[in-house]
Amino acid sequence: MRPSAYERHRELLQSVVGALAAGEHRRPFTEATGQDAADAGMRSARTAGKVFGSLLGRPFDLQQPGALGHVRTESSPYGVGPGIDYQRCDPAELVAAAGRAAAGWRAAGPHQRAGLAVEILRRLNTRSHELALAVHHTTGQPMPTALRAAGPRAQDRALEAVALAFAESERVPADLHPEGAGRGGRPLALRGTCTLVPRGVSLLIGCPDFPLWNGFPGLFASLVTGNPVVVAPHPRSVLPLAITVRVARQVLAEAGHAPDVVTLAVAEPEQQVHRRLATHPAVRIVDFTGSARFADWLEQHAHQAAVFADRTGLNTMVVDSTDDYRGLVRSLAVSLCLCNGTVRTTPQNILVPERGFGTDEGRKTLRDLGSDLGDAVDRLLRHPARVARVVGAITADEVRDGLAEAARYGPVLHASAPVAHPDHPSADTRSPLLVRLRASDESIYTREWPGPVSFLVGTDSISHSLAIFRRTVARHGALHAAVHSTDPLVLAAAETAALEAGVDLVANLSDLPADPSSALADLPGAGAHFVTGRFRVVRSRWHNPRAAPTPAAAAEPFTVPVPEPAVVAASAPGLTELIDL
Amino acid sequence: MRPSAYERHRELLQSVVGALAAGEHRRPFTEATGQDAADAGMRSARTAGKVFGSLLGRPFDLQQPGALGHVRTESSPYGVGPGIDYQRCDPAELVAAAGRAAAGWRAAGPHQRAGLAVEILRRLNTRSHELALAVHHTTGQPMPTALRAAGPRAQDRALEAVALAFAESERVPADLHPEGAGRGGRPLALRGTCTLVPRGVSLLIGCPDFPLWNGFPGLFASLVTGNPVVVAPHPRSVLPLAITVRVARQVLAEAGHAPDVVTLAVAEPEQQVHRRLATHPAVRIVDFTGSARFADWLEQHAHQAAVFADRTGLNTMVVDSTDDYRGLVRSLAVSLCLCNGTVRTTPQNILVPERGFGTDEGRKTLRDLGSDLGDAVDRLLRHPARVARVVGAITADEVRDGLAEAARYGPVLHASAPVAHPDHPSADTRSPLLVRLRASDESIYTREWPGPVSFLVGTDSISHSLAIFRRTVARHGALHAAVHSTDPLVLAAAETAALEAGVDLVANLSDLPADPSSALADLPGAGAHFVTGRFRVVRSRWHNPRAAPTPAAAAEPFTVPVPEPAVVAASAPGLTELIDL
Repeated sequence: MRPSAYERHRELLQSVVGALAAGEHRRPFTEATGQDAADAGMRSARTAGKVFGSLLGRPFDLQQPGALGHVRTESSPYGVGPGIDYQRCDPAELVAAAGRAAAGWRAAGPHQRAGLAVEILRRLNTRSHELALAVHHTTGQPMPTALRAAGPRAQDRALEAVALAFAESERVPADLHPEGAGRGGRPLALRGTCTLVPRGVSLLIGCPDFPLWNGFPGLFASLVTGNPVVVAPHPRSVLPLAITVRVARQVLAEAGHAPDVVTLAVAEPEQQVHRRLATHPAVRIVDFTGSARFADWLEQHAHQAAVFADRTGLNTMVVDSTDDYRGLVRSLAVSLCLCNGTVRTTPQNILVPERGFGTDEGRKTLRDLGSDLGDAVDRLLRHPARVARVVGAITADEVRDGLAEAARYGPVLHASAPVAHPDHPSADTRSPLLVRLRASDESIYTREWPGPVSFLVGTDSISHSLAIFRRTVARHGALHAAVHSTDPLVLAAAETAALEAGVDLVANLSDLPADPSSALADLPGAGAHFVTGRFRVVRSRWHNPRAAPTPAAAAEPFTVPVPEPAVVAASAPGLTELIDL
Repeated sequence: MRPSAYERHRELLQSVVGALAAGEHRRPFTEATGQDAADAGMRSARTAGKVFGSLLGRPFDLQQPGALGHVRTESSPYGVGPGIDYQRCDPAELVAAAGRAAAGWRAAGPHQRAGLAVEILRRLNTRSHELALAVHHTTGQPMPTALRAAGPRAQDRALEAVALAFAESERVPADLHPEGAGRGGRPLALRGTCTLVPRGVSLLIGCPDFPLWNGFPGLFASLVTGNPVVVAPHPRSVLPLAITVRVARQVLAEAGHAPDVVTLAVAEPEQQVHRRLATHPAVRIVDFTGSARFADWLEQHAHQAAVFADRTGLNTMVVDSTDDYRGLVRSLAVSLCLCNGTVRTTPQNILVPERGFGTDEGRKTLRDLGSDLGDAVDRLLRHPARVARVVGAITADEVRDGLAEAARYGPVLHASAPVAHPDHPSADTRSPLLVRLRASDESIYTREWPGPVSFLVGTDSISHSLAIFRRTVARHGALHAAVHSTDPLVLAAAETAALEAGVDLVANLSDLPADPSSALADLPGAGAHFVTGRFRVVRSRWHNPRAAPTPAAAAEPFTVPVPEPAVVAASAPGLTELIDL
């Protein structure tokens, strides 16, 4: 007999669970070594282009229920090939199919589910380059970022969610020793079990920029805790999640499970399939990474569901002083250019005192910073090869509209202009926009601007900057905040402000991976809640006449005397002894 | 120097945390032994009446901000003394005061918070009998139940929530070893911290029947995870929570904390103070035990908050067969009478096949069961002493109206009639109502009926019963379900139905404590989520030039080769080496 997926992956899984418990991180996919891994990587790299090419211009079918025809919603910002037609399925049918698949998936138990989740990841790992091409050609992300966000690092992040969900499932006690009373109030031998009960159908709303990186944690946490998942990609980036769903369905079917535990929901944008699914009564979990506006909408309308929303919000940088002005300018320039401002760490709002700030190169004004930053961006983008590696292509009209609109609100410190892409001359590749605003322009800089739009906001003082930071981020959320200061008091105040605003903070770092590889630290609401909110625990208890009564089942008097004539406590073991029928 | 509350209670706390981790339960308050405990219990019992008496007929002030005058909303169903006037405070002022107190409470950290929580419980423990009298005289619960639901068992339940919250807080890693890159892409030595960030102001909506039992877990879980709590009791039962708030404020003030970490919000019912508080933008957590209707309202309107709602719903019993007919009838009779049907285990809907069911006394029809049950209730309530111990008094017109209305919907198998209370002849003490319904009367038996209203619902078969059970409980929730059957197949099917409906099940038990003492198993959504949903984790990271780079910070190449000319991965450590300024 073939060993189960759990048996095959038990060691890997246990090692990641153990590392998590020890506060460490293991990255088995990223750190895979040896000839096998090298061969697999080479194979994946060599075949990716061909496999990817074979997907283009033909229907991508998944044999799902409720098919209503085909739909094409993507177009490559790099102009690669004709688009792909996906099956459009009735969303209600997909939810119903997930509901039918739920009982079997729940009964499979956490071991089997975690084993199959690892198997899905293992197969995705062998297709890392194909997935990276799919991300590159739908999101416009430059290829190095696409591989990072779709390959081994994304799989390790998913594996951490699998391990966390598995560990939390394991914490549910299997056996209970409840108490009860039988005839005449004699203690009864009871037995009981605890069962993890999944919440219900889970919905993953795909993100247009990092569909796998942001989608994997919710997808895998839901699967391992027993919830079937309907995956609804963003219309602009369907393919990476479609390949993921296909692999998941294959693994499920091979293991004898209903493939409809994971389905794909694609539709024309005007069908509002995300809203329809998110408010479906049977959808009980929603995962979303994106604008605070849609996150708010979800929390206001998807009452029936637990909503795990990671709000992109208002990434903010507070500049007070620095002993590495050049490093600050250089890293900020990269941040503004990188992936068109879509990475988690790019600041939209840079708060700087109007009167300037101290540096290792003397006092700098806000105007100095704007000018140096603009120059640094221009130098960075002078080389077309760097444009290809760093910037990526713009895919959405809303980004183009945002760039045009934002430029009207203040002095433009760096204009967004076309830059040449060496390989794809037709790609819409642009430099970032940097606009100077006043602190009073809050209505402008508290909007979320998609794409490479950043504001240099002049404030009265560092206290004023911190107050704006705390207030705006507490209200609108953010993925990331940064502070630059040489003053320990300012750093401490910034840390307090970040805690109050509920946002991660980095201090005095020129450079930080845009996407830290630890999923755990990076999950919406960071931590165990991300997993424990996906299930509840149900108890079942019964009389076991053959077992001896456990000590806990003995009658328990109150230690403190009751201020009334001695009585047996109502509803305590032995209640029925009050009654002689 | 006086040891901190944490130091004083460290041993107790650690023993409960350890027991939880081992899947066991410790009950230090219930199981306290020795002369000290006996003396304390005796003192509490002796002084309770006097202390309780001294509270009556005078203002109960807490020196809270925003006082707008006094309000009296309670009246004793046993006619004891004049009511108590509570300060009515502007709810917005209470939330603002909680917000001001939040920073200091957050900064106190989990150790100090857990220590103070235990200290609050320890002091409540010395007032167990006073609290029991407060519950008895506001809710109408019989005295033994009141002591159980307000005394050591309730404190142990709260202690378990404290320990769980403390343990989850401890799981947040204190130190991080993140990765980053400095000038020229050299790995940087970084340091970082993780901080538990409380969600915000917490609201406890008090329950009219078991204000402490149902209120303690949320109150203490919020406090230990750093959230200030506004306690808004049910207008009919303010005093038990008011005493609790007073004790908490004393403990906080003595330890140098702002007492407004815990405040009391009382108002006339028409002020809708619960709704106003639950939708206040700064209220981020709501705890509620009660009707599914108000729980639904909360989830639909309190978008800004995490809602922990325990729906009383439709407690259901499925009867298929039994080898202890007499025991079944007897325990069911007690359940119907007990505390006017307000305990967690009393069935509202009893599903029985119309054609009858097998028992150790031969086949019984639905009519037999109704008649035997009615007789058993009458025998039980024949003795006034038992009425005092078991039934309690009705406090609400909605219960009286429900009894009158429900009797009109079908043949009355047992009419609700006045029964004499030996000590309080003026108390409104009634026997339970039992009405026969058909399966098609779903619109009646899927309403939640407060008070001692139960329905004997005739079904076509056991399968029909289980289908009704699964559908109605999945839709409307329930705290408890029971099945009686001698057929293992039926028991298995009932267990599956309970899992699908998401409700705890007991099988073939004549008698079970109405309120199991383990909070953990009994919390809304059962388990860790109850605690982890009350905070998030925020990271702070900075450059530590004096420390050596950790191995994790070394450059990490992708193991699998990139299918493009070799590049440094964008956003990976070493990004800035792409740029020469």
